[in-house]
Amino acid sequence: MIASSQKHWSGDVADLLRVGESFVLADVDTRSTPGYEKDKAHAADDLQSGAADLDEYQERLYARSRVDATNASVLLVLQAMDSAGKGGIIRHVVGSVDPQGIVLSAFKKPTEEELKHDFLWRVKQRLPVSGMIGVFDRSHYEDVLIGRVRRLAPEQEIERRYAAINDFERQLTDSGTRVVKVMLHISPDEQKKRLMRRLNRLDKHWKYNPTDVDERELWPQYMAAYQTVFERTSTEHAPWFVVPADHKWYGRLAVQNLLLEALQDIDPQWPKATFDVETEKRRLAAT
Amino acid sequence: MIASSQKHWSGDVADLLRVGESFVLADVDTRSTPGYEKDKAHAADDLQSGAADLDEYQERLYARSRVDATNASVLLVLQAMDSAGKGGIIRHVVGSVDPQGIVLSAFKKPTEEELKHDFLWRVKQRLPVSGMIGVFDRSHYEDVLIGRVRRLAPEQEIERRYAAINDFERQLTDSGTRVVKVMLHISPDEQKKRLMRRLNRLDKHWKYNPTDVDERELWPQYMAAYQTVFERTSTEHAPWFVVPADHKWYGRLAVQNLLLEALQDIDPQWPKATFDVETEKRRLAAT
Repeated sequence: MIASSQKHWSGDVADLLRVGESFVLADVDTRSTPGYEKDKAHAADDLQSGAADLDEYQERLYARSRVDATNASVLLVLQAMDSAGKGGIIRHVVGSVDPQGIVLSAFKKPTEEELKHDFLWRVKQRLPVSGMIGVFDRSHYEDVLIGRVRRLAPEQEIERRYAAINDFERQLTDSGTRVVKVMLHISPDEQKKRLMRRLNRLDKHWKYNPTDVDERELWPQYMAAYQTVFERTSTEHAPWFVVPADHKWYGRLAVQNLLLEALQDIDPQWPKATFDVETEKRRLAAT
Repeated sequence: MIASSQKHWSGDVADLLRVGESFVLADVDTRSTPGYEKDKAHAADDLQSGAADLDEYQERLYARSRVDATNASVLLVLQAMDSAGKGGIIRHVVGSVDPQGIVLSAFKKPTEEELKHDFLWRVKQRLPVSGMIGVFDRSHYEDVLIGRVRRLAPEQEIERRYAAINDFERQLTDSGTRVVKVMLHISPDEQKKRLMRRLNRLDKHWKYNPTDVDERELWPQYMAAYQTVFERTSTEHAPWFVVPADHKWYGRLAVQNLLLEALQDIDPQWPKATFDVETEKRRLAAT
């Protein structure tokens, strides 16, 4: 039995953050910390105990896939405006797990080769196999976010993509992958502070790009594109979770718990030996 | 300046463990802890402080590759008999680094597709790009280890491979990759203990395979194949390091320090901004 790491939560994180029918992104307070009853000081401890749980679940998931005919896997999709904390989630939440159980993919501006294919082509090649936790740092959703805001494809093609995404994710979940879609949500003011911090530190300059400011000008358009994404693609089989992320510690804790819930839902057990244990002990002892 | 994590070492780890001209594997004491002046109790602290150094070096390496035209990368090659601790190295040494800077590849029994190509084909596809740390869990060396012991290819083909490996690794290092080749070395008795432990624990059964005992019978042949590997492929550009690994804590600390030395040798600096910082501060402030 794995200890519950949700001891300081007033409710189920997934229920609190899931994007439902009448969800309005503009109503989310990016500084809020839904469901967490303690503060930053406790969050570090809780993140650590959650990491131990995550570690054990991941190992069980992996172990079972090596022995039994199972097809369970997890896919964490991370979307956010720049500096919202995707990197921190990967480093501090995903990074606490054995690297052998993780397959991480960062999707950047598509290459020429990728542009020749359907927009789902490149993500389909990076799906986690049985027993693995896949992490998408950006994803196929870029094709209906920046794709929409910057008009990188005809209107009709963008429209087609929402249904294509739903079909694709339906196939994924039908074949045993738990899909956890997370948008880390910060305010424009918080982003400004974070970008300014990058400009003020010599060891952070590499993270800054002048186009970050250009993208800021399009903030309302991006929020509208996200709202449409939520309305069109937050499905029962693959719901979205909007995680308030002005407080980095809350974002990390919340995403860790969303991952934990997905794994608890799979509830992987240690696989049974496929050999006779006593026979093997004797064989080994004789060597 | 990054603090040196080698404070409890009597000498340079790389020098102590490097396979030189007259190296004899049979002479290595698998229980020894060359160069480390403290014991297990201190090793945990030293591993932690080494992890902080590794973390900073890795981020600098990555950062620089994002901005400057550099082609520096690191490739850690891990080879060992079963249960020698490759998994522990990946989890506790590699796993302490930001997953965004790591590309991990486990090479198992070749697929039919892979067997149709030259033995180097599959590894060439998994080389770290600039700024990354690649980790090979087993490697092209399997093709001259199990390949030789189990006669999986004609004698003449096996012979051809040593030179092919040297040429390949020469190209790699010439193009900027530091290659760190590690054999974790345990005794047959230590392996027996570890395999028995797997048989005694329900949550470790999945790690046990009856063929492990068959492979044990071939221990002397494997050691001979390793000895040949060292004689033929421990080159100046890509030397081998044999790490005594009966003490897991020593193996981890030693490999961490070998990685640190490779990174210190590259000595990556934070890249300079490619934009005018003051202009950007004004632009950002105006948004």
